[in-house]
Amino acid sequence: MFDPLKIGIAGLGTVGVGVIRLLAEHGELLATRCGRRIDVVAVSARDRDRDRGVELGAFKWYDDARDLARDGNVDVVVELIGGSDGIALDLSLAAISAGKHVVTANKAMIAHHGTNLAVAAEEAGVNVVFEAAVAGGIPIVKAMREGLAGNCFNRVYGILNGTCNYILSAMRESEREFDDVLDEAQKLGYAEADPSFDVDGIDAAHKLAILASLAFGAPLDFAAIHTEGIRHISPVDIDYAGELGYHIKLLGIAALTDRGLEQRVHPCMVSTDVPIAHVEGVFNAVVAEGDFVGTTMFSGRGAGEGPTASAVVADLIDIARGARAPVLGVPAGDLTAIPAASMSDHQGAYYVRLLVVDRPGVMADVTAALRDAEVSVEALIQRGRSPDDEVPVVLTMHETREAAMLQALKQINALDAVLDTPRMIRIEQL
Amino acid sequence: MFDPLKIGIAGLGTVGVGVIRLLAEHGELLATRCGRRIDVVAVSARDRDRDRGVELGAFKWYDDARDLARDGNVDVVVELIGGSDGIALDLSLAAISAGKHVVTANKAMIAHHGTNLAVAAEEAGVNVVFEAAVAGGIPIVKAMREGLAGNCFNRVYGILNGTCNYILSAMRESEREFDDVLDEAQKLGYAEADPSFDVDGIDAAHKLAILASLAFGAPLDFAAIHTEGIRHISPVDIDYAGELGYHIKLLGIAALTDRGLEQRVHPCMVSTDVPIAHVEGVFNAVVAEGDFVGTTMFSGRGAGEGPTASAVVADLIDIARGARAPVLGVPAGDLTAIPAASMSDHQGAYYVRLLVVDRPGVMADVTAALRDAEVSVEALIQRGRSPDDEVPVVLTMHETREAAMLQALKQINALDAVLDTPRMIRIEQL
Repeated sequence: MFDPLKIGIAGLGTVGVGVIRLLAEHGELLATRCGRRIDVVAVSARDRDRDRGVELGAFKWYDDARDLARDGNVDVVVELIGGSDGIALDLSLAAISAGKHVVTANKAMIAHHGTNLAVAAEEAGVNVVFEAAVAGGIPIVKAMREGLAGNCFNRVYGILNGTCNYILSAMRESEREFDDVLDEAQKLGYAEADPSFDVDGIDAAHKLAILASLAFGAPLDFAAIHTEGIRHISPVDIDYAGELGYHIKLLGIAALTDRGLEQRVHPCMVSTDVPIAHVEGVFNAVVAEGDFVGTTMFSGRGAGEGPTASAVVADLIDIARGARAPVLGVPAGDLTAIPAASMSDHQGAYYVRLLVVDRPGVMADVTAALRDAEVSVEALIQRGRSPDDEVPVVLTMHETREAAMLQALKQINALDAVLDTPRMIRIEQL
Repeated sequence: MFDPLKIGIAGLGTVGVGVIRLLAEHGELLATRCGRRIDVVAVSARDRDRDRGVELGAFKWYDDARDLARDGNVDVVVELIGGSDGIALDLSLAAISAGKHVVTANKAMIAHHGTNLAVAAEEAGVNVVFEAAVAGGIPIVKAMREGLAGNCFNRVYGILNGTCNYILSAMRESEREFDDVLDEAQKLGYAEADPSFDVDGIDAAHKLAILASLAFGAPLDFAAIHTEGIRHISPVDIDYAGELGYHIKLLGIAALTDRGLEQRVHPCMVSTDVPIAHVEGVFNAVVAEGDFVGTTMFSGRGAGEGPTASAVVADLIDIARGARAPVLGVPAGDLTAIPAASMSDHQGAYYVRLLVVDRPGVMADVTAALRDAEVSVEALIQRGRSPDDEVPVVLTMHETREAAMLQALKQINALDAVLDTPRMIRIEQL
């Protein structure tokens, strides 16, 4: 048996504790699977005295995580601090410079600095791996980089944020408002006190940037992602979606189009005929469409101590076994930028909900606005009648250009009889 | 860039041609991803003159596949001949002895000889890899061996045969008989002329044996698998299943129980609340339940030229990159046999359909037989009435021991008023 792989863990929150627990519980098994032990030798966190429920006495303690990079006894730095910059990035770069492998769960850091980290890692001859950064315990980074690496991809998409998926599932099941369900999610620990990273789609966008780079061999381009969250989704829309045969999901979608690389995160109406529509609650799912393999889907828990620890340890197992693949699937020097497709050129179908005064001529005005923008209506539903009172009207559009849809909505919003800002949700063909 | 990885392909059926096509179409991309080219240098098949739609002129031709093992120019032998023994096994063992890696899609060979092949490969210091042997293009072998390797597993199961899943999906959608749909599947190329390997569950059992070995670190034990096929499933049962909230799926299930390792392939009633119930047509899906990661599901096309070629090439990419993991997840010497749980000790819920004469006292006799065997009835449904004529009766049982259920069925079958052999389908708690 080879020498143990010696690791230093920076950050002892839920995930760090999970990693320590997993390595302790499955130490013998992992030694058998890897041909060598994986031993924690050093740790760092802000508060040394906090009781975390795991034994830390045997590990060297550092108050400053960056000192892990300088510890000659550490082969691998496991970065679980979080944040795109700051100590996490300093530590990762220092570890690479010191010839240490880096394992991280930090999606923000990879989304913003992944390309530079890949360049640095290649120069130093070490690995930077981040299975835990995308979709929790699901081994999707490995699948993109290795298991499906024989394919060219046209599209990769998924439910990348468990908090949003939990909220949307719960809203549908219990017919409650967003704020009410968010409140519950916070109490259950599925949402942070400040939920904006999750519910505004930023966390999903971080993960999408990583998936897109792996799928298309392009440098990470987080800034190019069109990002919308789920705050404006109402139970009424979820209800109409159900009637039309859809579930509403927050998807991250990256696709090669003839207009360039489209990267977008926003709520989508997804046909209940496709399996991803049935991925509920805190589960994540990623669909990769390869030219030879066809459509593959991977689902599982997207966050939490156990799943994230499972992903971090999978990366450690690879390092212990000496497995090597390029950080982003191809050598950093071979990453090729793909022009970003503008969201205004996006082609898709749309759902629109209006609140209008129920009086003759309103529908003529609305459909005239759509005609002027060259948007073609697929269906128009007005439930019930209440003359001269307000009434909701739902329309679905055939595939059209986003700019045309927005132009039409602007005109519609300006109509006297339209009482509230029109709600638009994209209908996704999957 | 390193020297090309030179491969010899034995067997030029659908999959072999797919591999040649993939390597030709994506040669440059793969060279970038691997840091070296993957080049076909030699091939072997039965008929040299057949037009396969791909250019073979540049490759050395062998009439006898076993000669590939002796070709000093070949680094990797890709075995796509099939069959558990015979030339496939001879070639694989010869290649290993000659210090060549083996990539195979041969589930029968791995199911029967995987442990010996692993021993031989370790001794020779080469790899034997078989991603394509389980669930087509889905990278599930890699997931079990690497991506989820931080976990202990309690259960792994899946839809492992696309032919059966296609037939069951089509029977449900079109309310047709098994024979009728099988006929159609044969015309569409989804079923072989002799369909028994598929519809009798043997192919699924081969794959299950492999998954179980990977999940539980045990030698392959194909002989221990309880195997039933789908020939006896009737549209009536599919209909009742739907009423009760189930779809009928042929599952392969391997689970650690306190009675030992249970390995079984048989039709199951699966609640429509669980995602795998919605995996339809020729798709496969595998669910792995790890102690840290929780429930993960992987789905995709389980067969066909493109998906299988994708899996074969993924194995070649690993070899080209120098990645190494033990053949069966742990070194062969560490594989530990787990006693097989007897099927008669299986604990589960059951669906039973009877055809009985509609007259007073029949239900009393049936329920008495169940009581005598200590089987507890959950529900009993008799649709319609036709006194003194035949009428179907459907029962579901609470969890009980298989031996007790079979004992009760024997007694029920002996009743005068029971007109046909009772039909039993297990209800699976997933």
